[in-house]
Amino acid sequence: MALAGPPPFSTVLDLVGGALDPERKLVERRLGDMQGMYAAPVPDERLDERVYLVSEIPVPIDEGNLLSSTTTIEPGTVGGEYHMTKGHFHAKLDRAEIYLTLAGEGRLVLATEEGEHAVEPMGRGTVNYVPGGWAHRSVNVGHGPLVFFAVFPADAGYDYKTIEEQGFPVLIVERDGAPEVLPNPRYRG
Amino acid sequence: MALAGPPPFSTVLDLVGGALDPERKLVERRLGDMQGMYAAPVPDERLDERVYLVSEIPVPIDEGNLLSSTTTIEPGTVGGEYHMTKGHFHAKLDRAEIYLTLAGEGRLVLATEEGEHAVEPMGRGTVNYVPGGWAHRSVNVGHGPLVFFAVFPADAGYDYKTIEEQGFPVLIVERDGAPEVLPNPRYRG
Repeated sequence: MALAGPPPFSTVLDLVGGALDPERKLVERRLGDMQGMYAAPVPDERLDERVYLVSEIPVPIDEGNLLSSTTTIEPGTVGGEYHMTKGHFHAKLDRAEIYLTLAGEGRLVLATEEGEHAVEPMGRGTVNYVPGGWAHRSVNVGHGPLVFFAVFPADAGYDYKTIEEQGFPVLIVERDGAPEVLPNPRYRG
Repeated sequence: MALAGPPPFSTVLDLVGGALDPERKLVERRLGDMQGMYAAPVPDERLDERVYLVSEIPVPIDEGNLLSSTTTIEPGTVGGEYHMTKGHFHAKLDRAEIYLTLAGEGRLVLATEEGEHAVEPMGRGTVNYVPGGWAHRSVNVGHGPLVFFAVFPADAGYDYKTIEEQGFPVLIVERDGAPEVLPNPRYRG
């Protein structure tokens, strides 16, 4: 049988800080990349500020393979909304994902195309199950970096556009120093 | 769209001991279940001894879903061979798996149907990539429990029979207190 995968290999994950050794593929998102995703506009002087970094263990994008990555979201807010990832559906909608939080405190916001939503806790040791069909966005509600390791099918793909157009049904905002879940007035699902 | 997955849910993983909270599905393997898998016979008085325990986060066995579990292998040897899992191919041969070691020291033994083999290290923080097409067995070569968290496609399935009949090309044995890789004289691949 012809095998689609790479040969077996190993990587070392720092179970506190999330760093991968060797460090392979990095994706950086700055506030300038998130324009329009927060309810408030991103101020010009903050466009270069890094919101999150994804460090991935790359494998061929074939059915059967699994992608894994560490995401680190810096603490902070934009107009009262906590720093967060863009969020996406999987292009192959039925593909699930598993998150393992290594550091920090967060909320995982999930939504279906029909507008159902869920908010799950993230903290050191939390394993979140992101079922197929649920868009997912992670939100750092703590004072330090939120760090999590994710595993998902390599052929899942990314649909960012639906979220860019519709938003999520809820926002996670800071109220008196604590996170609060509010309906998203701009949600167009 | 009809969604095959469960609703979103979370589980807490002890990042040192591997315990899952809530604890869901448990599979226990005793030495009596491993008869014929070690080069030496298992002595009668050790048949009830637990070799390993798998604690799984169950999800529907559908394409797109992901299974995850913690495996704990107790330290010890049988006729000089270190305690190990049975090992298996995935029934859907192209399905990969990702291991994250939380505690202990181990070796991951891998083999293709064509008899190619690989031995990868396992230690706290090690992420092993088990590509599709590779049978995999984990071996505890340390003095304490070997604990790892695994993620794999829910539809991967298990083929234990091929390994029961053929064995792996190599054995991991204790020699002067340290692990050594030896050819398996009974390998029938």
